[in-house]
Amino acid sequence: MILPKSVKIVEVGPRDGLQNESEAVSAQAKIHMVELLADAGLTAIEAASFVSPKWVPQMATSPEVLAGIKRSPGVTYSALVPNIKGLEAAIEAGVDEIAVFSAASEKFTQKNINCSVAESIERFLPVVELAKKHGIKVRTYLSTAVGCPYQGDISPATVKALAKTLWDIGCYEISLGDTVGVGTPRKIQAMIEAVKEVVPVSALAAHFHDTYGQALANIYAALECGVSIVDSSVAGLGGCPYAKGASGNVATEDVLYMLNGLGIETGVDMDKLLLASKFISQELGRIPASKVACALS
Amino acid sequence: MILPKSVKIVEVGPRDGLQNESEAVSAQAKIHMVELLADAGLTAIEAASFVSPKWVPQMATSPEVLAGIKRSPGVTYSALVPNIKGLEAAIEAGVDEIAVFSAASEKFTQKNINCSVAESIERFLPVVELAKKHGIKVRTYLSTAVGCPYQGDISPATVKALAKTLWDIGCYEISLGDTVGVGTPRKIQAMIEAVKEVVPVSALAAHFHDTYGQALANIYAALECGVSIVDSSVAGLGGCPYAKGASGNVATEDVLYMLNGLGIETGVDMDKLLLASKFISQELGRIPASKVACALS
Repeated sequence: MILPKSVKIVEVGPRDGLQNESEAVSAQAKIHMVELLADAGLTAIEAASFVSPKWVPQMATSPEVLAGIKRSPGVTYSALVPNIKGLEAAIEAGVDEIAVFSAASEKFTQKNINCSVAESIERFLPVVELAKKHGIKVRTYLSTAVGCPYQGDISPATVKALAKTLWDIGCYEISLGDTVGVGTPRKIQAMIEAVKEVVPVSALAAHFHDTYGQALANIYAALECGVSIVDSSVAGLGGCPYAKGASGNVATEDVLYMLNGLGIETGVDMDKLLLASKFISQELGRIPASKVACALS
Repeated sequence: MILPKSVKIVEVGPRDGLQNESEAVSAQAKIHMVELLADAGLTAIEAASFVSPKWVPQMATSPEVLAGIKRSPGVTYSALVPNIKGLEAAIEAGVDEIAVFSAASEKFTQKNINCSVAESIERFLPVVELAKKHGIKVRTYLSTAVGCPYQGDISPATVKALAKTLWDIGCYEISLGDTVGVGTPRKIQAMIEAVKEVVPVSALAAHFHDTYGQALANIYAALECGVSIVDSSVAGLGGCPYAKGASGNVATEDVLYMLNGLGIETGVDMDKLLLASKFISQELGRIPASKVACALS
């Protein structure tokens, strides 16, 4: 199987990585983190979230962060947006791109946002419309794409149908999330192969969590299917705080190490990435949840 | 690519995993650990080492351990053996199988045992001969099979030539070691494909360290080449003590999770494996270096 020649890494650390941290990280530290990541060559950085601070207090500084970043040319600074109010605030703060959130599991969606999957998509339709009017691209997360904590296995056919809907309404990139990290390579491939029948593979991103240590093997399996966009989080931010060794998002450093070894272009510089990793890890007072960062520090 | 239907996991925790622990683990604890591993369904357990206790003090109790294990039918209890003296002691203690040690890197061999690669093989030739006379099978480690800390990249051609020699002198299984964990999937595959030209793939084992987080992706890549023997260490024992997050051997639990997900038979029971993991981790006073163990505990 031929691997892609280049991969776009979507750095989700400043948002997906930090959002569950209980200790507030200052806006200034977040801004510096994002600037270090851009300096390392990352061209897609999810920097903020406009979900209500009532639900995600860590992201309350998002307007300040987005507005405060010294922008690098060629870098897209994005934010998660749940509704029109959030979109308006994101536009006000100068967002380049937004991400909306969907999930393949009915039970997960019900528990998370108290509606059906279909209703959740209806709810963000006006957000997508308004974003398009402003010339802002919309990415979507499609979570629980192989498994759900409440529902178990999710069928590739379910994900395929949903991906088609999301594509049809105008999301330009679909990030397929193994939210609970239960995927293994062949399940990942079956899911991606199904989705590829209805959405161009160039629009698909691999967003895999490392809860069971499978993320990198799964990313390799996704590359084998032609996926050329990978979501990851510097220093593996986003781990579950309940268990020291268990982590959430796969670490950008570890993904980059594999891509470098595979001879796949990313434009990201490992040494500079490690500076960003070191900075935010020191800010949080912990060692990075990245084997590469630990081995090379 | 078709994956193997079943995989033999070679559990190296009691030897490769524990050998660098500075605090002595009691013989009784080691015996209990090995018995728990056998109870979990592991059929190949490297339980001891007959390298001089002067060099590896942790393994000084090896004769006692090997002799003290209540043997399970169908389980092979093996030991690392460096010379005739070690082999005699291993036979005395009732070893089923031995492992000898070689490396593909000249500089690594020079630094490690102060001789050339060719000389290192000459040295263990009489060990292989005597073992065969006693009906004891000989496995060999072929370390630094993709990279060396002193020499950098190792060419597939070098590993191929050496693997042929080891096969020709009568080693029945060759464990290809990415000792420093610098391999990535396509480098691993290039190395294995070269070796397969001279040694049946059924005789090849993947022994990958997780220093840079690549081990599981590399194991998946090895499975794609038809490799059906995987070395791993319960609780990820064998980590480098200098850095908390950096580990050595890939954790058996994480390997098993992937193999289970791939529908590959191993005969190993996850719940029972986790008991062994928990036992030895408590004995060492630390959390397991296994994401699966952390997530499921």
